[in-house]
Amino acid sequence: MPPAATRRYVSSILTSDFEKRLKEVESKMAKDIRVQKTFEALFALEDIREIFRGTLPTGLNETEEQEFHKKVSALKKIINELESGKGNPEISKLAGTLPIRDREEPFINIQPIQAAGKLTVEARKALIAYGDGYSTCDSCKKPFRLDKITKPGIADFHSELAEFLNLDEARVVPGARRGFQAVASSLLEKGDIAIVSSLSHYTEFLSVENAGGIVKEVPLNEKNIITAEATAEKIEAVIRETGKTPKIVMIDHFDYQLANEHDIKDISKVSHQYDIPLLYNGAYTVGVMPVDGKDLGADFVIGSGHKSMASAAPSGVLATTEEWAPVVFRTTQMKGDLTDRRFGIKEVEMLGCTLMGGTLFSMMASFPAVKERVKHWDEEVDKSNYLIERLLSISGSKVLSEYPRKHALSKIDTTDSFDKVAKNHPKRGYYLSDELSKRGIVGLFPGATKAWKLSTYGLSTDRVKYLGDSLVEIAEKYGLEVR
Amino acid sequence: MPPAATRRYVSSILTSDFEKRLKEVESKMAKDIRVQKTFEALFALEDIREIFRGTLPTGLNETEEQEFHKKVSALKKIINELESGKGNPEISKLAGTLPIRDREEPFINIQPIQAAGKLTVEARKALIAYGDGYSTCDSCKKPFRLDKITKPGIADFHSELAEFLNLDEARVVPGARRGFQAVASSLLEKGDIAIVSSLSHYTEFLSVENAGGIVKEVPLNEKNIITAEATAEKIEAVIRETGKTPKIVMIDHFDYQLANEHDIKDISKVSHQYDIPLLYNGAYTVGVMPVDGKDLGADFVIGSGHKSMASAAPSGVLATTEEWAPVVFRTTQMKGDLTDRRFGIKEVEMLGCTLMGGTLFSMMASFPAVKERVKHWDEEVDKSNYLIERLLSISGSKVLSEYPRKHALSKIDTTDSFDKVAKNHPKRGYYLSDELSKRGIVGLFPGATKAWKLSTYGLSTDRVKYLGDSLVEIAEKYGLEVR
Repeated sequence: MPPAATRRYVSSILTSDFEKRLKEVESKMAKDIRVQKTFEALFALEDIREIFRGTLPTGLNETEEQEFHKKVSALKKIINELESGKGNPEISKLAGTLPIRDREEPFINIQPIQAAGKLTVEARKALIAYGDGYSTCDSCKKPFRLDKITKPGIADFHSELAEFLNLDEARVVPGARRGFQAVASSLLEKGDIAIVSSLSHYTEFLSVENAGGIVKEVPLNEKNIITAEATAEKIEAVIRETGKTPKIVMIDHFDYQLANEHDIKDISKVSHQYDIPLLYNGAYTVGVMPVDGKDLGADFVIGSGHKSMASAAPSGVLATTEEWAPVVFRTTQMKGDLTDRRFGIKEVEMLGCTLMGGTLFSMMASFPAVKERVKHWDEEVDKSNYLIERLLSISGSKVLSEYPRKHALSKIDTTDSFDKVAKNHPKRGYYLSDELSKRGIVGLFPGATKAWKLSTYGLSTDRVKYLGDSLVEIAEKYGLEVR
Repeated sequence: MPPAATRRYVSSILTSDFEKRLKEVESKMAKDIRVQKTFEALFALEDIREIFRGTLPTGLNETEEQEFHKKVSALKKIINELESGKGNPEISKLAGTLPIRDREEPFINIQPIQAAGKLTVEARKALIAYGDGYSTCDSCKKPFRLDKITKPGIADFHSELAEFLNLDEARVVPGARRGFQAVASSLLEKGDIAIVSSLSHYTEFLSVENAGGIVKEVPLNEKNIITAEATAEKIEAVIRETGKTPKIVMIDHFDYQLANEHDIKDISKVSHQYDIPLLYNGAYTVGVMPVDGKDLGADFVIGSGHKSMASAAPSGVLATTEEWAPVVFRTTQMKGDLTDRRFGIKEVEMLGCTLMGGTLFSMMASFPAVKERVKHWDEEVDKSNYLIERLLSISGSKVLSEYPRKHALSKIDTTDSFDKVAKNHPKRGYYLSDELSKRGIVGLFPGATKAWKLSTYGLSTDRVKYLGDSLVEIAEKYGLEVR
């Protein structure tokens, strides 16, 4: 039975105000009011913009001019506070309910799935300019399909995406999962089998289930890797047991659990020996490291915009080969029985157009930066290994992912280090997230001290060093041995 | 054969620089530099925000402080230009390729599908604060599903959405089309029949085709309305001819072509007499007028966020009854054959979570305004009728939609008015969009002078009056009779 103080503490957390308390802890950090003032200035400018959005093309009338100057005065006051770093927060909620999210500004965010999706500054500007839903459609003309729009250059962007992944055709989709869905729906009939990894993401399961298919998992080897050999054996076993050749092999290049690298290139060779197409799940690779679809032998490459391409959600990409494009991007054959209507160029799996407005434009605006950053993947891996090294210097800590790391995301095990402290700490496991928060580090799953994940993707060298220092500092504070 | 000047003009348009020329025309309007400066100030603030997004939690270092003050100085210069209305545009493209979209600011936009999707100011602020893809997931905890997240109040928003539509359960989806897809995929087996309207949207066709079904269209009456009687006859005919009872009736309350109102309430009664569920397509109603699912007898209500709920794209809502929720929101039953993994709470058709980040938060931020604005639908209809009246005062003009109008979107026919001018104008049909552009009105399909669509939704009374005046003024300029 834990002591009364602990029970009260845990109970206070469980009664849901953990977030509130965390905020209190966070606010103890000398929080820079200038972040808040940056937001307030952005919002004040949107208020000004709103005047123009409601006026006549002939210009502001007298009342609107007065309103404009009043709002500009308010803005200037905010800018002065921004400049001087003085002042108090004036806005706490948007639309009455939404707190201002300032997680990426004063904090280092190690949340594993958020790191590579964070918007670039160009993407944020594009969201501002193109936030309206159908902003993609201003110059849409025949044949009326998203990927054919030339102003702005959406058609070019689609070609560049295909080229970037070295495949023949690409479409944007509302998240990688919608790419899996399109492929599964195109290739699987009821009862058909899809080979997946034992570490596959749940959205691969769901896409197969949605198509009426069945998943069969390839086992991991002793190093938690999916090998070509294991894949071949699984295919053989499925054929032997069911008499059916699987219709697709879906493999994550780096999986979401450990971010281990799987033998995708050899797996694609094996799949092709059985004439089974390979779906390359690049949710953790497309947009952060170079991905060459042809070289990998992938029939489908799927990436996630909001996970790894610095894009607003939901977004993603589905690229394929000349061979498979007519299957997965097949156009509608349906005809109205009365009207004889046909919608010939619309693609069935895409349901016509997919990503409109700011979501797509955020992808496009981040794309130049994304193309550049994949060239520096080795530096990201170095930072990841540096951090893991620091962590491993804390006696008892382990890395559950393959090591040395080949990815920025890692799963670690601190059962024999940080969790030992938790056992006797009045705050239990929450002490660690608290200690990190106090140091401006967020994104650790609150309360986690055993197995947990983090990502160093996109953090500057200084930030990674600060993160390593902080972990070591906390370990030392609680008397853990540091080598 | 048209004269050489016309041919040159048309050819210049066809060779793709129509947009450029249009911009030239537009720029002749005394364009308010303050709109441009508002954008530039917003972008400058994002540049400042970027400094904080890259620094250490301990605060800016000396170099960063210098950069900060330099950028604040640049911002202040922009603010001064904004205030004085003087200065020149300094930024023309984002990320090197994307022009700044200022369509809603200096212009009146009558583009029919864009009107009710335009973001509210609160939605634009939410996009700024929550643009990062996984910003929804900061406080995601067990059972790890989007609609269960309580901080911020995503779970509450889902309940409110269901209540707003007076149905039992609601989910957000990446566009209305993904709602059709979820329902069609849940209800239709290969060869099953879906009843749709002769004016149905192509995405209904595609969703049925994707599920392996077949569409059968209900004919329009002489007033271009789908009646309950015609629906019953079609159902009877289908049963007679195929021996199969249709699995679903999908009807648009207001269709996308004419925005005529169809007898949805009686159609749902008829459908239920055959035990066929009714899908209410509310792409043009949910978010602009009151929609009471229970009263309408709808089994599924589908709305579009970016079409009618002032939300970023792709977004939408799928609401249903207690009876159908277990079907369309069924959870996964798939089990990993090796690992025994299950993902119990994830919904198959939703593929787990649907809308993350700014897209969802823009819906949530606009929602209070949306709930309020549906109460003022009659005012929107009044403005629509006012505009159509002005148009009909131009001799030869007709309205193809039902009249008096019951919707803000209308299809009109100016073959015997504006198109008569086009026949002899060197710019052909483009003269009309040019004349409108010159007056700050955009969104007319360039070149259209016969049948075209427009929407007055959300325009102020002054703007609608200005629009009416402009149409009449252009008619008079070209010698058309105005009554």
